[in-house]
This record gives sequence, structure tokens and C-alpha cells, in this order.
Amino acid sequence: MKPFPENNPLQRLISLLSRLPGLGPRSARRVALNLMKRPEATLRPLAEALIETADRMKNCSTCGNLDTQDPSIVCADEKRDRGMICVIEDVGDLWAMERSGIYKGLYHVLGGTLSALDGIGPDQLRIHQLTQRIAHMQKTPTPVREIILALNATLEGQTTAHYVAEQVASPHISITRLAHGLPVGGELDYLDDGTLTAAFTARQKAG
Amino acid sequence: MKPFPENNPLQRLISLLSRLPGLGPRSARRVALNLMKRPEATLRPLAEALIETADRMKNCSTCGNLDTQDPSIVCADEKRDRGMICVIEDVGDLWAMERSGIYKGLYHVLGGTLSALDGIGPDQLRIHQLTQRIAHMQKTPTPVREIILALNATLEGQTTAHYVAEQVASPHISITRLAHGLPVGGELDYLDDGTLTAAFTARQKAG
Repeated sequence: MKPFPENNPLQRLISLLSRLPGLGPRSARRVALNLMKRPEATLRPLAEALIETADRMKNCSTCGNLDTQDPSIVCADEKRDRGMICVIEDVGDLWAMERSGIYKGLYHVLGGTLSALDGIGPDQLRIHQLTQRIAHMQKTPTPVREIILALNATLEGQTTAHYVAEQVASPHISITRLAHGLPVGGELDYLDDGTLTAAFTARQKAG
Repeated sequence: MKPFPENNPLQRLISLLSRLPGLGPRSARRVALNLMKRPEATLRPLAEALIETADRMKNCSTCGNLDTQDPSIVCADEKRDRGMICVIEDVGDLWAMERSGIYKGLYHVLGGTLSALDGIGPDQLRIHQLTQRIAHMQKTPTPVREIILALNATLEGQTTAHYVAEQVASPHISITRLAHGLPVGGELDYLDDGTLTAAFTARQKAG
């Protein structure tokens, strides 16, 4: 016998939780039971935060970033360098770039990578918006000088980078990609051959 | 610069998610971004399930199980053996017992284990309710014959089992605990010494 019938709200909650990335049936059960220990202090604030997020967060129509405002706070920031667009896969990558603090230009979130297996072609990504955005920006006093393809170093990421590079190619725009090499703090012995070859080929003058 | 200000609802959602058991800041970000990909299909149903769970699920005043009804479906089931009470730590343990299908008696959820470190004494657990429940049941046509202490084989679990055994001791009730031994499918070589000793000591006639 099951401890409760299928239409039980807790069972439904566990089933929804178990579909989240990184959670399985067991951890979903654990999360749900933990929330039910002090529902007013943990469960209800979480439900409210979810609803507020759904109500107030939207994708910026220009860069694709998630924000409460459109244009997003990054697009609206006059201090940022409008001559550079960093092309990334997901909003999480934008956050990673922002955490590093190295970049002060604009972004363009593609919303994924090309993948024949998952049926994701150029029309499912925000590539057309990117070419339109660049065409529009070239007519302004601050045209695009550089497009940085900061896509994942996976097969899909690199295929997408190649395709985007072809689409945005222009004599006035330099297209760059992130360097491959030894991660900071990384050890040679643990490095895969591809990275080691890339790091060796792109070696730089020391000191 | 941060990609968005601190009072952003998405940031608040990530902070709440990261406090759930088994999730850290990185996996909380991943879950939140995943939910925002298709908010109407994933995020809102989750919020609704959370609220419905908070509204409708309650602890059974008799056994402590979580259910939409009180007495819970287990307590209310007339087919179950009312002469046995299985004492467990948490609702998750009740579900584990029910999944196994081996047990057809009643339950009593303690709500934790005794822990001097966390300041959890007998009054924080449902031990008093257990002794009262037994006293009441001894006056009915189906008195308690057996109490099974199905607590975790941890130091806290065993301390709690010992304490509960003392509290419910009675000449008319047999008190049992789960057997220690080799897990089904387990390999001797990977077993800790304590379990191996317990399994050897409690060895049974083969065949």
C-alpha cells in the first residue's frame, strides 16, 4: 500500500521537484519533507518568491538577459562600452562573465546552442536578433567594433560559434573567441590532451 | 557590477533555493534559470503545488504522518494490525517502510532524534504522545503487542531507541528493533567492521 493516494498535493510537489536539474526522486522527497517541517518559514516564502519571479522577471528584448526591466540594467547602463557585444549561450553565462568583472561591454544571449540531435536550428536561437541588432547599431554614433564569441568549449558550442561568426562577418567588426589553455590553478597532469595542445600552440612570451 | 540589484526577485528565489538540503548556490542558480526557461509550464505549477501542499497537508495528530486527512490514511485503515506500532524518526522513514510493503501495522513518527548538540530533548520529540497513545490503546479491545523501534543505526538513532524503549517498557509489550547485518546485494569487502561483527554475531542456520 502507498502511504497516500496519487492525487496527494505532497506527491505532486515531489514529482515536480524531481524534474528539476540535479534533483532526483530521492532528493525531491528530502526537499519536500524538509519544507514541510516549518512550512510557514520555508515553504510559503519559496512559493511567493517563485510567483514574484514569474510575474516580474522577463527577458530583455535586446540582449535576452533576465531582468525586471526591459531594456535590462546591462543594456540601459550608459557607462558600458557599446562597441563590444559578448555572445553567450545562457543567462547563467552572462552572470559568470559579470562575476569575473573583466568585461564592460554589452551582451547577447543566444538561448542555447545549435543541436541537430535536439532539433535546435538557427531559428530557435536569437541569432537573427543579433544580426538585426548589429545592423541597427552600425547606423548609430557607437557602431560595433568587436564581437566576442564566449560560447562553451563543447562541440555544440563551437559549432554555434562558427555559425554565428559567419552570420555577423563584416569588414568593420573584429570577431574574437575566448582563449583555450591551462585553467588558473590547474595541473598539467590532469589536463586533457586537447587543452594541453591548445595551451602549447598558443604559448606566450614569459615575463 | 552585479547583473542585477540585490532586491531582485530572481536573486531572492536563488537564495531561498540554495538553503534547501542538497542544493548549493550553484545548483540553486541552475534550478532557477531552468524554471525561467518555461515559467508557465514549470515555475507556476511548482509554486501552486507548494501552496497546495502548505494548505492541505498536515501532521496526523495520532501518528505524526503527513496527510490531507487527520487521522491519516494509515491510522484510519481498519485493515492494518492495531497491535503493532513502528516507531520512526521522520515521515520519509514511514514512506520507506511502506515502499517495502513488509509491514501492515501502525506508525509513530518521533519527528527527529535526541541530540544534546542540537538541543533536542525528549520534549521536542513526540515521545510523550507515544506513551499516552499506548496507555490509551491498552484499554481498547486491540491492545499494543509489539513496538518496533525502526530508528536509524546512527549514534543519535540508537540513543533515542534506548530512551524510547525505557519509556514504553511494559510486561505486556514486546519491544523489538531492526536487525543489523549485510545489506542485500552488499559485498563483505566493502562492509564496515561494526556491521560485519553484527552480521556474524546474529548469524542464522543456512538453508
